[in-house]
Amino acid sequence: MISVNKMTSPLGCAIIAALFFANCHAAGKPNFVIMLMDDMGWGDLGVYGHPAKETPNLDKMAADGMLLPDFYSANPLCSPSRAALLSGRLPIRNGFYSNNDHARNAYTPQNIVGGIPDEEILFPELLQQAGYRNKIIGKWHLGQQPRYHPLKHGFNEWFGAPNCHFGPFDDKKTPNIPVYKDADMVGRYYEEFKIEKSGESNLTQIYISEAIEFIEKQAAADQPFLLYWAVDATHQPLYASRKFLGTSKRGLYGDAVRELDFGVGVILNKLKQLNIDTNTLAVFSSDNGGATYAKTQGGSNGPFLCGKQTTFEGGMREPTIAWWPGRIKPGKVSHQLGSLMDLFTTLVELAGLTPPSDRIIDGISLKQTLFDNKPINRTIFYYRGDELMAVRVGQYKAHRWTWTNSIEEFNKGTDFCPGEIIANVTTHDQTNHSSQPLLFHLGRDPGEKYLIKPASAEYKSVMPGIMQEISKHQAALMPGKPQLNWCDKAVMNWSPPGCEKLNKCITPPPSAPVLCTWPH
Amino acid sequence: MISVNKMTSPLGCAIIAALFFANCHAAGKPNFVIMLMDDMGWGDLGVYGHPAKETPNLDKMAADGMLLPDFYSANPLCSPSRAALLSGRLPIRNGFYSNNDHARNAYTPQNIVGGIPDEEILFPELLQQAGYRNKIIGKWHLGQQPRYHPLKHGFNEWFGAPNCHFGPFDDKKTPNIPVYKDADMVGRYYEEFKIEKSGESNLTQIYISEAIEFIEKQAAADQPFLLYWAVDATHQPLYASRKFLGTSKRGLYGDAVRELDFGVGVILNKLKQLNIDTNTLAVFSSDNGGATYAKTQGGSNGPFLCGKQTTFEGGMREPTIAWWPGRIKPGKVSHQLGSLMDLFTTLVELAGLTPPSDRIIDGISLKQTLFDNKPINRTIFYYRGDELMAVRVGQYKAHRWTWTNSIEEFNKGTDFCPGEIIANVTTHDQTNHSSQPLLFHLGRDPGEKYLIKPASAEYKSVMPGIMQEISKHQAALMPGKPQLNWCDKAVMNWSPPGCEKLNKCITPPPSAPVLCTWPH
Repeated sequence: MISVNKMTSPLGCAIIAALFFANCHAAGKPNFVIMLMDDMGWGDLGVYGHPAKETPNLDKMAADGMLLPDFYSANPLCSPSRAALLSGRLPIRNGFYSNNDHARNAYTPQNIVGGIPDEEILFPELLQQAGYRNKIIGKWHLGQQPRYHPLKHGFNEWFGAPNCHFGPFDDKKTPNIPVYKDADMVGRYYEEFKIEKSGESNLTQIYISEAIEFIEKQAAADQPFLLYWAVDATHQPLYASRKFLGTSKRGLYGDAVRELDFGVGVILNKLKQLNIDTNTLAVFSSDNGGATYAKTQGGSNGPFLCGKQTTFEGGMREPTIAWWPGRIKPGKVSHQLGSLMDLFTTLVELAGLTPPSDRIIDGISLKQTLFDNKPINRTIFYYRGDELMAVRVGQYKAHRWTWTNSIEEFNKGTDFCPGEIIANVTTHDQTNHSSQPLLFHLGRDPGEKYLIKPASAEYKSVMPGIMQEISKHQAALMPGKPQLNWCDKAVMNWSPPGCEKLNKCITPPPSAPVLCTWPH
Repeated sequence: MISVNKMTSPLGCAIIAALFFANCHAAGKPNFVIMLMDDMGWGDLGVYGHPAKETPNLDKMAADGMLLPDFYSANPLCSPSRAALLSGRLPIRNGFYSNNDHARNAYTPQNIVGGIPDEEILFPELLQQAGYRNKIIGKWHLGQQPRYHPLKHGFNEWFGAPNCHFGPFDDKKTPNIPVYKDADMVGRYYEEFKIEKSGESNLTQIYISEAIEFIEKQAAADQPFLLYWAVDATHQPLYASRKFLGTSKRGLYGDAVRELDFGVGVILNKLKQLNIDTNTLAVFSSDNGGATYAKTQGGSNGPFLCGKQTTFEGGMREPTIAWWPGRIKPGKVSHQLGSLMDLFTTLVELAGLTPPSDRIIDGISLKQTLFDNKPINRTIFYYRGDELMAVRVGQYKAHRWTWTNSIEEFNKGTDFCPGEIIANVTTHDQTNHSSQPLLFHLGRDPGEKYLIKPASAEYKSVMPGIMQEISKHQAALMPGKPQLNWCDKAVMNWSPPGCEKLNKCITPPPSAPVLCTWPH
């Protein structure tokens, strides 16, 4: 490097570092704030059309930044989606799937044996090597065993939990989920970190405070940072703090949305107040579609079909906004097909780094999209477990397989598509259409209601290109070793690191690994 | 009047009038622009969540004005909705219904005998008496027989047609619909006013030019005006001009939306350019929900159930925006329950006039809502023909009757709720729930999917108040004489006024009145 810029030259940097503890390596590099919601649907934001219009801060974020209405998660379920975001790779490659059964969604409940493999390079690791300080606040979900924890995979700090905040458990048959501060637990949900039956909990407020404290510290030290704000108030069990309870037109779900929207406002305003907004890319999105099965306790997927767990649009289209005052022009809309995996490549590039070349990275850099609103060719692959269910090329989406859930699960009351029945599409059998995929035009038909007939000229002109995309993808595919096949009660959060200091260790049962059952 | 204001004092006014032909009576009064779309759905606008985000001018109108997400038409079908808008009264009062059969949607096809009764006072009449100059551009739909025409009911000018632009007809069995300039026809659709099979037509461009010319003339004369821009490109058969054809992600429907959005931009910009924006209330809305039965040729109702023809939210929730720079604060959202009928009372009040006191007016003044965002108590009544199907009070909606359409119509392919089936709700029988209405909370459940059980405490606490609203309404109701019962081929547009000059008169068949059949 031959730059003579005072701030980034070795000498200037050494002075700055001595004065402010800044990491020289990274001085001048942009900060990143990834705000990833949990089970929030595309249609939950005012700017994405929710009739309650209760997200003024997100609507303002969009007005000041770029709306990305054609942005997807890599999976319709939390853990694989998050693993893909951080690794830039489809779950089928990074191992966040199961092949215990065909096309099943797997995740990381606390009895899961697996987690994010060491071989996977997460973008926080790359940023960290380049001098960034990284913090995750909220839900990790890439494995609850200590070797999988965030501090082993590129994060410097952690405040949050390894699993979903399910419970309360009895700490005998099942332990309550621990909450960590960095490497050690500092309590458990429903014990030190309350979530009341009423839905009252101050967790989101804690997550906001943690974010603000972290941002302030890094700004004061002129330290480039990554904040991964992985909050979970919109995942069942829903919660909100007393101040927000009962304030939404939408009930408890809306209270949670309102508090998260408030948090987004606090964070973005803090960036402005600290004058680092013009050097910070903030991205808001969600890990998968709204949990339609939760009925009025779940999110809205707007005009899209079905929700979480499915490879219909409602399962994977995410309410995405990108914001970088001075770099991203205000009020822009980009219909670029994007994926949460693109954050890997985009952030790595914006930090001046090079993505690894020894593996396939599914994420692409959206730099051109964000700064110049230039279209980039790309295909969206919709996976469910080990199966490529559907593919989107341009406005066309082809379903190779359709499935909602089994009729047994449906009859037990689990409905991923409440009120929605599309013949041959919202099937309760896993239906193989791969020889003649079901084709939809998402521009004319965002709700995937009107099949383009195979005999039509449109189908005949479009499908060969899509089939080619599928072949190309499948030919290059070397599935990673599935990490979500084995479950064992012994690996639950009985005695997390730090439990001794709190006197909260529980003796685990003997190990008894079984193949996990994934009903969906 | 003892005002000494130069502009409104009799003397000053006389001078102004002499100089600029202004009508003194009305000098200084605000202008009104009502932009009423045809079959456009709540979810068709970017600002209301359409994923294509192709309405930049409407989105800007909302950003500069007030969004009204809880705004309704008085009816799920065109003619009754428009009659209610102009009369401020429910169709059951103003006669725009039929009782040939129970709960049927009736309208004004060209063989309809009836039309808007002379006894109904339309707000253009009141404005006209107060010195306003009024123009309707586009679809009238309150009766095609000359005595029902706009120039007989409060309008000074007309450019457009009395009926929908169906066709082409053969002018033997059925005449093509005439297009009028004021009292006389100037041609017919598919003849002088082309709509090609491809969807190409320059009608929207003509409607835009007509609007601009009218506005410019009134502004030059300092003449207060009402412009009722009742364009119809989003009603089947869809059309757009060559410049817009093929430009939307959504196909022809989207092309039509884009051209109308363009027109909105042209009109609002003209108001600004003429410096009359700060003295003009512009309201954008639609006459009923998107025509879901038209599949990809119909509009989007966003997260709402079903569409046009039904009393579910998709049938009557309208994409409404109010705009008045300097008076309505920019970027506001009001969840006031509003109705197109409220335009009657609001405009009359804003013009300094008093609504008639000899009849029940269903519209309320939204002045407080628009200028102060203050909530006003009001109930929404959802009628289908002669039946009160549903009622909304606050966030609660109670269905007294449910019906989509008959199973015979459905089996013939007419589906008002494509892909949507809610047990007991989207019924193909007319189902009477009036003794125990179906209750929904539209805040938690905008899609009317999750019934609140009659045994629940919520139902028990809410329903008595709603039942009281229904009783009160029904006790005061004196249904008007139904105007849409009789049909006669002889009253079709065979020989409209002005046909002689164009040599376009056709001899009508002998009169043979029959009771109209309304299948829905």
